[in-house]
Amino acid sequence: MTRQQLVEQIRTKRSYLVVGLDTDITRIPRHLLSAPDPVFEFNRQIIDATKDHCVGYKINTAFYEAQGLAGWQAMEKTAAYIPSTHFKIADAKRGDIGNTSSQYAKAFFEALPFDAITVAPYMGADSVLPFLEYKDKWTIVLGLTSNTGARDFELQKAGEELLYEKVLRTAAQWGNADQLMFVIGATQASEFTNIRAITPNHFYLVPGVGAQGGSLKEISEKAMNKDVGLLVNASRAVIYASGKEDFADKAKQVASEYQQEMAGYL
Amino acid sequence: MTRQQLVEQIRTKRSYLVVGLDTDITRIPRHLLSAPDPVFEFNRQIIDATKDHCVGYKINTAFYEAQGLAGWQAMEKTAAYIPSTHFKIADAKRGDIGNTSSQYAKAFFEALPFDAITVAPYMGADSVLPFLEYKDKWTIVLGLTSNTGARDFELQKAGEELLYEKVLRTAAQWGNADQLMFVIGATQASEFTNIRAITPNHFYLVPGVGAQGGSLKEISEKAMNKDVGLLVNASRAVIYASGKEDFADKAKQVASEYQQEMAGYL
Repeated sequence: MTRQQLVEQIRTKRSYLVVGLDTDITRIPRHLLSAPDPVFEFNRQIIDATKDHCVGYKINTAFYEAQGLAGWQAMEKTAAYIPSTHFKIADAKRGDIGNTSSQYAKAFFEALPFDAITVAPYMGADSVLPFLEYKDKWTIVLGLTSNTGARDFELQKAGEELLYEKVLRTAAQWGNADQLMFVIGATQASEFTNIRAITPNHFYLVPGVGAQGGSLKEISEKAMNKDVGLLVNASRAVIYASGKEDFADKAKQVASEYQQEMAGYL
Repeated sequence: MTRQQLVEQIRTKRSYLVVGLDTDITRIPRHLLSAPDPVFEFNRQIIDATKDHCVGYKINTAFYEAQGLAGWQAMEKTAAYIPSTHFKIADAKRGDIGNTSSQYAKAFFEALPFDAITVAPYMGADSVLPFLEYKDKWTIVLGLTSNTGARDFELQKAGEELLYEKVLRTAAQWGNADQLMFVIGATQASEFTNIRAITPNHFYLVPGVGAQGGSLKEISEKAMNKDVGLLVNASRAVIYASGKEDFADKAKQVASEYQQEMAGYL
């Protein structure tokens, strides 16, 4: 998906919501457990219910890998089921030496039909460049994450700046704003003005709204750019809005509320 | 596997070699392609041929994920086939917020029978701690990697020290030397004396010997400790020693040469 297509989706739907499919088989409604593939069945119903209110889906690969082969199969089926109009993110946090990162790129951009993958920056340029070789695919580099552990390294001094600032500045040289985004946690709202100054044109994938407590309003006010430049992810707040048979209806309702709030900021 | 069991294996075999199963379906001998599962068949023959000369196997998950569901299945079969005497490493470079890292730990320590997993440190303590909750399982944190990209962040100033030094010092507080190791690339031999001074008791998983050019002699002289403290990985140099029908014999020969060289350093 090109940047232009993504921005058009956002403008048309008046939404920059991404729904995170962190689907945990121990948390899905019990009545689904008799389905042939409960995780896929849950995702299918969530996608059908929320697709008019969001512009993308983010699959958290960990939850699928934890279920072994059946989990990988559920991930394949889910990725194939997401409408082609929607931005498909593999939240995989991969990254390794070049010849290995090439294999990860192949896994998520060829064997699976994702538009984007999240990658870890620690190992530097050659661990990220293989992902950027794919035309119209997106590489989403971890910048400043939403968890408390962000204080251990990301928010520590690295020369004249903080490590996450160095990562933003450096990674912005590896690829342009048509192929590279950054993960910026919603709980780091105090840093958003600074982050937007460092990377004025890039899109941010922003997790941490909802269960993790980040403020959609504050992020939107501080970090929106002329192309919106934000994809805000909500996972648990949407998909586990209800643990009962009405889970899809409740997910739709929460997704719709996010969309309406976003429309007000656009 | 406990540290004591690992050290006993090393002393008994007079080897600290780990064979890396970076099995690429495009590089395995053609006569295997008619097997029902060519990647597993290749790995099975490599394991049979090399198991007397090494103390562990390292599965590079990227190469399996690149083959989709069939690849994940080949990984499961390979992990199950590795003898229980051998240390089984998932070279997966995972790491995410706590509830997600817990799912990765489940994937590799429960759904799959690995003894150890490599993890990326960028997101800090809570991204690594879930792996450390498993008794007799090992977490191998990226310290200083073998690739040129190590210069981008790992070897940059972070306060009074270099970032990789801060990572070593910080992560060594998260877990003790009975459950935590570090990845230290063999191409970084000039740093090994310093690294050993920072983390005197930890084991290092050392990739980068062979195809990447690191020196086994220099690493062994600089970084061995009283429990050896080294697991040196060779992947391509062993498994692709021959691309023909004699691939397993040639792999055995190369693994044996590494073992004999290692015996001389013990």
